Amino acid sequence: MSLIEKINLPSDIRHLKQSDLPLLAEEIRKTIVDVVSKTGGHLASSLGAVELTIALHYVFDFSKDKVIWDVGHQSYAHKLLTGRREQFSSLRQYKGLSGFTRMSESSYDAFTTGHSSTSISAGLGIACGKRLKKDTAKTIAVIGDGSMTAGLAYEGLNQAGALHKDENLIVILNDNDMSISPNVGALSSFLSRTFSAKYLQGFRKDFGEFLRSLPKIGDDMYQLAKRSEESFKTFVTPGMLFEAFNFDYFGPINGHNLNHLIDILQNIKSIKEPLLLHVTTKKGKGYEPAEKNPVYFHGVGCFEIKTGNCIKKGISIPTYTKVFGDTMVELAKDNEKIIAVTAAMPEGTGLAEFAARYPERLFDVGIAEQHGVTFAAGMATEGFRPVVAIYSTFLQRAYDQILHDVCIESLPVIFAIDRGGIVGEDGATHHGLFDISFLRSLPNMVVMAPKDENELRRMMVTALNHNGPIAFRYPRGTAAGVSIEKNITPIPLGKGEVLTEGDDLLILAIGSSVSEALEAYSCLKESGTKSTVVNCRFVKPLDIDLILSLVKKIPRVITVEENVRQGGFGSAVLEALNDAGMSGFTLKRIGIKDVFVEHGPQKLLRSKYNIDARAVINAAKEII
Amino acid sequence: MSLIEKINLPSDIRHLKQSDLPLLAEEIRKTIVDVVSKTGGHLASSLGAVELTIALHYVFDFSKDKVIWDVGHQSYAHKLLTGRREQFSSLRQYKGLSGFTRMSESSYDAFTTGHSSTSISAGLGIACGKRLKKDTAKTIAVIGDGSMTAGLAYEGLNQAGALHKDENLIVILNDNDMSISPNVGALSSFLSRTFSAKYLQGFRKDFGEFLRSLPKIGDDMYQLAKRSEESFKTFVTPGMLFEAFNFDYFGPINGHNLNHLIDILQNIKSIKEPLLLHVTTKKGKGYEPAEKNPVYFHGVGCFEIKTGNCIKKGISIPTYTKVFGDTMVELAKDNEKIIAVTAAMPEGTGLAEFAARYPERLFDVGIAEQHGVTFAAGMATEGFRPVVAIYSTFLQRAYDQILHDVCIESLPVIFAIDRGGIVGEDGATHHGLFDISFLRSLPNMVVMAPKDENELRRMMVTALNHNGPIAFRYPRGTAAGVSIEKNITPIPLGKGEVLTEGDDLLILAIGSSVSEALEAYSCLKESGTKSTVVNCRFVKPLDIDLILSLVKKIPRVITVEENVRQGGFGSAVLEALNDAGMSGFTLKRIGIKDVFVEHGPQKLLRSKYNIDARAVINAAKEII
Repeated sequence: MSLIEKINLPSDIRHLKQSDLPLLAEEIRKTIVDVVSKTGGHLASSLGAVELTIALHYVFDFSKDKVIWDVGHQSYAHKLLTGRREQFSSLRQYKGLSGFTRMSESSYDAFTTGHSSTSISAGLGIACGKRLKKDTAKTIAVIGDGSMTAGLAYEGLNQAGALHKDENLIVILNDNDMSISPNVGALSSFLSRTFSAKYLQGFRKDFGEFLRSLPKIGDDMYQLAKRSEESFKTFVTPGMLFEAFNFDYFGPINGHNLNHLIDILQNIKSIKEPLLLHVTTKKGKGYEPAEKNPVYFHGVGCFEIKTGNCIKKGISIPTYTKVFGDTMVELAKDNEKIIAVTAAMPEGTGLAEFAARYPERLFDVGIAEQHGVTFAAGMATEGFRPVVAIYSTFLQRAYDQILHDVCIESLPVIFAIDRGGIVGEDGATHHGLFDISFLRSLPNMVVMAPKDENELRRMMVTALNHNGPIAFRYPRGTAAGVSIEKNITPIPLGKGEVLTEGDDLLILAIGSSVSEALEAYSCLKESGTKSTVVNCRFVKPLDIDLILSLVKKIPRVITVEENVRQGGFGSAVLEALNDAGMSGFTLKRIGIKDVFVEHGPQKLLRSKYNIDARAVINAAKEII
Repeated sequence: MSLIEKINLPSDIRHLKQSDLPLLAEEIRKTIVDVVSKTGGHLASSLGAVELTIALHYVFDFSKDKVIWDVGHQSYAHKLLTGRREQFSSLRQYKGLSGFTRMSESSYDAFTTGHSSTSISAGLGIACGKRLKKDTAKTIAVIGDGSMTAGLAYEGLNQAGALHKDENLIVILNDNDMSISPNVGALSSFLSRTFSAKYLQGFRKDFGEFLRSLPKIGDDMYQLAKRSEESFKTFVTPGMLFEAFNFDYFGPINGHNLNHLIDILQNIKSIKEPLLLHVTTKKGKGYEPAEKNPVYFHGVGCFEIKTGNCIKKGISIPTYTKVFGDTMVELAKDNEKIIAVTAAMPEGTGLAEFAARYPERLFDVGIAEQHGVTFAAGMATEGFRPVVAIYSTFLQRAYDQILHDVCIESLPVIFAIDRGGIVGEDGATHHGLFDISFLRSLPNMVVMAPKDENELRRMMVTALNHNGPIAFRYPRGTAAGVSIEKNITPIPLGKGEVLTEGDDLLILAIGSSVSEALEAYSCLKESGTKSTVVNCRFVKPLDIDLILSLVKKIPRVITVEENVRQGGFGSAVLEALNDAGMSGFTLKRIGIKDVFVEHGPQKLLRSKYNIDARAVINAAKEII
């Protein structure tokens, strides 16, 4: 029986000999690599955190103590050790384990995660709650150095450092010198100074004793020496930053040395002040291909274990992400005003090539969507055309900045919103199902969604020609597979296009739902129903003239969108028809019905939540 | 002729003798106090920044250089010096000057502000834009220490410190040891260490020379001494933090000493690296009542100049804010689970008394709405009932945290949303006109709005009884003036109430718009039209049964809300009616029509934007 099989609950780990733990780590790594090679997932981060996870469960009792894994993408070992080993092969599969931590999945998941940098805030809330209840259990937030670039983490640190001294909050900084991509920002270069400065650390004790030993200097001077303000200018350590926030700082320590980790965790367990333990780890640790290419293996699809090579599914159609990235490179060539802004995801948003070609015009702001948007607004005031490329779900972080810093003055900032709609295996925290609603309510904002890759390119040009805030959202995954038109013409603002003609039914679709509408059109045609399918292109401004004239002719209307129904595209159509005084029509709004959508394959979820072609056909049957 | 009258453009300042500037400062202060005593406004912050403003305009040329006043509430002197002296008495009046900076108001306002902590991000965007254009003009962000507690500021600092060295960005930290209220958080106590540590600063040079003079120590040891890591643990200066972010740090300097300010600004003008100048000022400087009570004079109404006493308008009806605060105190007495969370505004949200009575249960998280919400989510997982009291406009900052950290797991966090609707004189950046739309689209969220103070109290109890995310929004200003019922009964979830009966017209109203609906009802009744007025109470879940039964009977419907129409309450009614297959009704949605609303008196703006009783009457005339 392998060691891992003996562990059904974390308490079982504490029955192992400490000397057995490295073997356990090896077994965990093998299990993770085996499963993720088949399911895909966040491999590199989880491999990096194996020893830390074992050590935490060895020292703490998480049936009482709480651990919050920031983002949750490094929690695979934690899942394996907390009663989920047998389900682990269902990772990120429909009805299987989530790729992040979920309170609803296990009582050992103290907080539901997915977006970056929530762990200190949530952990502090838990710790303060425990203090009020006089519960002395520990709360531990494990946060990566990448997540530390987000303002939310800083806001949490700021409050934590100022609160009562008995909060029992431990922050573990899991420092692998990476976010999703290599880290950016001052904080990052600051943390990495650790290593060069490390050799000096032995000196400090010696130096203190040496100073004391000098009769001429004595205690006063020793105090002064200790206090020499100059020092920080030349000798900076990560501890400095956290001590500034009143945290007791420990580290940096090697996050792959189990004995050392366990010793220090045992030691800090008894400290009753906010403390920060700085652990350095290697992203992808123990699996050579991931160690060599941690960016690729951050979030990865199926791969061959031996080589790490991607197992291709024989699809050669480019993704929307790639079309966007390539078109950015193409357009930027002749337009110096184009600037790209990414929040720690140049690869994920397809901007790697742009970054290589135009390094001066690519701004990676770190995991800092709020700042990225306001930064872009500043750029726009100088006459530039910043393209802010952020996934739909992460753009939620910048809602106020879009409203307050961009829309009020109607600044020409372009929002390229990838992963609009259902994203699949990342699940509830990552689906982009709210952007149409939250953007549409903002004055001065134009909201578009393309039906295919050519239209995406046309919308990019449309956006660059528009003198105000404008957004286009496009789905995760392969594009429609149409051949790319070289000549890119802009789309007249607020103009939809009629794709098919038929007087029985009017289907108004937006973005990726246009293909579902067309599929429904074909099926319905076979059974004798003729539909007019409109690719609306614009959620805002709606092509009201077109829609009104068609609804007058065909008062049986279906709207289709990949967004929540509340306040979405269908709601916009309904509002417009009502404002125009239209009546006597029937309208079915197809969209997500006011629930959070779990993880699973995109196609399956579109079917389950009734936003696919079949849903359109069913709605058609109801209203004809 | 006074000095201030000689200044029509900032260039005129540079024709003054430097020795005349203190007199100019005095004249500016007098003008500000005179005007704000009549108009109300952000007095204390603007008084504190007078010398800094003069010095900046004396040294820099803001027809080329750019200055961004964070929040913009300290920009009154800047307005007086940039061609707006003659309009200054129109401050915060309808059609008059904004209380913040507005790009549309003056070319000297480099960015439109209102919400906290955008200046570094916007300034960095501008500076990067200038670099790309090879424009060597300076960009200056003036940010208060309060604003530094927001994550957005940190995100900006993090990127700024890592960028090119020729960005020409100057950050001026205007440190008055206050945000709106006294500052909280580790950063604050950190900055305030300056003062106690100040006396040590003279030593550092002496000490260095002393060490060098010791033959036994010599240069190597001097280097080591300089690098002694211990030092930061006992001698921390604000510079440390900013140097950690690669900023050159200067200060702290007295922000009321004009000669000193001008000298140092002249000196740093030529430095081509991100640099931070730390200026200490006194909030309310030069006006004794404001110096003594800077919290009260942060944002103040009309007052008597001699005493600083509020000029009462004879209104004794309590504000919604006060009713909320008093009820929190009342309910917390018997319910230990009630926690209050505020983002730097215990007074503004009415929680001062709660803070005094239950200091352990009031968490002021600083200007950190994101963190506040996630912190509350953590608290909720420990069984508490956190009440997050944040103004509608500032809650926009926490949109993602509400969605991701609260709603996905349906945690019982209560959102007390003050300043829902038109807020009046603070204008476009501060109106709370989006909350209904952005909250309504979130699964698991309950959204309410009370018609009067008793209903507010009932909604608070309703919220405490509800096991999931729930929000109630209420307007700025005096409540309805009804007598407070001692016994507070919860409202059944999703139940509206019929207030009047009449078969000619159905008016569905929410929150503060209920009183407009009732006023319209009375007027319409006089002219013979009988209306059924429904106080819907819930935007979500809507009282669909009630609404459907009424619409069937009275198919002439008006919805009224103080929110944008896109995706708002009326849209929710329309969606519900459509989903239920209703047809043959006429519905007019009254709400803000897809524009940003300027500043001015609430009543005037409600009339101008057609959301008042008259608008209801006009809509009634159209559909009957």
